[in-house]
Amino acid sequence: MRGRILKESIDLFDKKGFSKTSIQDIIDTIGVTKGTFYYYFKSKQELLMDIHLNYIKELLAEQEVIFNDEYLSNKEKMNNLISLIIKNIKIHGKSARVFNREFRHLDDNQLKLINDYRKEFRIKLQKLLGEGIEKGEFRDDLRCDIVIFGILGMVNRSYNWYDPDGEVSEEELVNTYMDIILNGIKKEEKTAHINEKIIENHFTG
Amino acid sequence: MRGRILKESIDLFDKKGFSKTSIQDIIDTIGVTKGTFYYYFKSKQELLMDIHLNYIKELLAEQEVIFNDEYLSNKEKMNNLISLIIKNIKIHGKSARVFNREFRHLDDNQLKLINDYRKEFRIKLQKLLGEGIEKGEFRDDLRCDIVIFGILGMVNRSYNWYDPDGEVSEEELVNTYMDIILNGIKKEEKTAHINEKIIENHFTG
Repeated sequence: MRGRILKESIDLFDKKGFSKTSIQDIIDTIGVTKGTFYYYFKSKQELLMDIHLNYIKELLAEQEVIFNDEYLSNKEKMNNLISLIIKNIKIHGKSARVFNREFRHLDDNQLKLINDYRKEFRIKLQKLLGEGIEKGEFRDDLRCDIVIFGILGMVNRSYNWYDPDGEVSEEELVNTYMDIILNGIKKEEKTAHINEKIIENHFTG
Repeated sequence: MRGRILKESIDLFDKKGFSKTSIQDIIDTIGVTKGTFYYYFKSKQELLMDIHLNYIKELLAEQEVIFNDEYLSNKEKMNNLISLIIKNIKIHGKSARVFNREFRHLDDNQLKLINDYRKEFRIKLQKLLGEGIEKGEFRDDLRCDIVIFGILGMVNRSYNWYDPDGEVSEEELVNTYMDIILNGIKKEEKTAHINEKIIENHFTG
């Protein structure tokens, strides 16, 4: 029942917003009494906090699994993490939207806890980038914090527009983002430019 | 007075959220009567719609100026647009947050109008990218729509964490984002690789 209440309230919060959804709306949708609701949750706010906690903790646990895989390079780990977030859209898109829109309705202590978890996720990504720089996988002339904020913005925003059942597959989205993050969108001039040099050297060298 | 009501309500909506801010809160902050409020706005929702319209229309007008500058390359226009969004954080950070969090409280017709404007902004960016591809400024092997969604996510998210008075200057943020978008974060192996080739050619050619 607990899971059922969580699931239905995520649907309602996503559709109507937290403020406009009453406990009455939630129990009407499921067909239970207020007593049942209060058996599991002290208040609507506690329910919202539970949605937030479930969401971020699951993400952190999945991040941990990827991080501890010693057979992956840092670049591959970055790829898998971006893939994780994007694949989450299909499974947890509504939670993600509720998570990102309604956190303002939590109280200060709740918000602090959630923000600590969010920060943990972000700092681990920064560490991954930093280690990748040391190993020579990534450029060393950019600020790690800005780069990670940029990557998270790019990827996290997808839940607002990306339709997993639309014409772009999850694979294509992950690959395109990874390609932009790793290689950028500028047309590669170096190859042509250096090929000329090679030819020049070939004839003058 | 109209501008004053808009300004104070943006502050309140940003701090407390739209639902939890009453018209009473707004007039108390300014020190006017309800009559004054209703002289300028039919309802709290109309006020929210005005905030949204002002925000998106100003952004579109500024985008237009950049687009019509015939002395700029498409790459420079992209740079200026990213710069525009980031510099907007200092001036319109609160509007941006209200805009991005509270749009759910608009009715269907209002939402459709706002979404049409947002789409206009995005489609113009896609056009800029498409023209840049034709001119050979950008790679031609990525889907324009995904690239633009990615860029907008990266840049738009900044209002959530970026502090214009912090240690990262607006210039550094714009330059870092532009650098990632254009060149990516992968350590450039080609140069070294091709330099070897040049040397090889130099001795064997």
